[in-house]
Amino acid sequence: MPALNFSEASGDKRALEEGKAFTPRFDANGLVTAVVTDAKDDFLLMVAHMNAEALALTLETGIAHYWSRSRNALWKKGETSGNLQQVVELRTDCDQDAVWLRVNVTGHDATCHTGRRSCFYRTVGLKEDMATLNSDGSQPLFDADDIYRKET
Amino acid sequence: MPALNFSEASGDKRALEEGKAFTPRFDANGLVTAVVTDAKDDFLLMVAHMNAEALALTLETGIAHYWSRSRNALWKKGETSGNLQQVVELRTDCDQDAVWLRVNVTGHDATCHTGRRSCFYRTVGLKEDMATLNSDGSQPLFDADDIYRKET
Repeated sequence: MPALNFSEASGDKRALEEGKAFTPRFDANGLVTAVVTDAKDDFLLMVAHMNAEALALTLETGIAHYWSRSRNALWKKGETSGNLQQVVELRTDCDQDAVWLRVNVTGHDATCHTGRRSCFYRTVGLKEDMATLNSDGSQPLFDADDIYRKET
Repeated sequence: MPALNFSEASGDKRALEEGKAFTPRFDANGLVTAVVTDAKDDFLLMVAHMNAEALALTLETGIAHYWSRSRNALWKKGETSGNLQQVVELRTDCDQDAVWLRVNVTGHDATCHTGRRSCFYRTVGLKEDMATLNSDGSQPLFDADDIYRKET
């Protein structure tokens, strides 16, 4: 368990926006949104969620931890694939309900479970009143089937 | 009302991850997470939420629309302040429950309601086992008190 505890979020808007205390505003499920970009160029890698424990562990260890909503478990990102995220900088927003992690990715330099660098590998466009997806051409940097098969 | 409708999200993981149809996976509240970066340098400007109507209007008009959870209303960002967001590119992630907007901001080139360029103007650090905030020095680009007073 991490040693770090967060104080309860202030109800005072000015304290949240201009104060010096980090008092994250966890939602009804105890989570804040985490935006993760590559420290090299700020390319968006993924969006995830953190509970208090994941956020504290991230601050204490410098390695990104999340809360997996699908597995309902603490998630040290990259533990299986080797693609850990070393946190270069952590920021929060005006009302302290989201954090921004600028990270260096170890291993294959891949963040997406499909093996790609980023989870955001497709652009959205309109074609004859339909919303369609186009790949940006990014290819898997590791064999996801192989890596994740080892887990079970 | 927008003309665009989104098809129901596929239950098939492979279709979501590798298919050509954009079928956003709205959560229990009918929302997807929207990450907004500056098209110039991908600096993170804000995190917000979109319902189907906001997402469709954004795709149809090229101007970012969100769903304000605090006001429970459709929100054309910048309508009051003049800081509209022109969408240069819209992406989605592997499981289609988040979107990434790369935007050009008009007006004061400010996104945060405090008047600053970005909502993420503070870094988080540890100091004697406390999580503290440090400003990155960014200053308001417009007088928020003045701009938003006009609204009422």
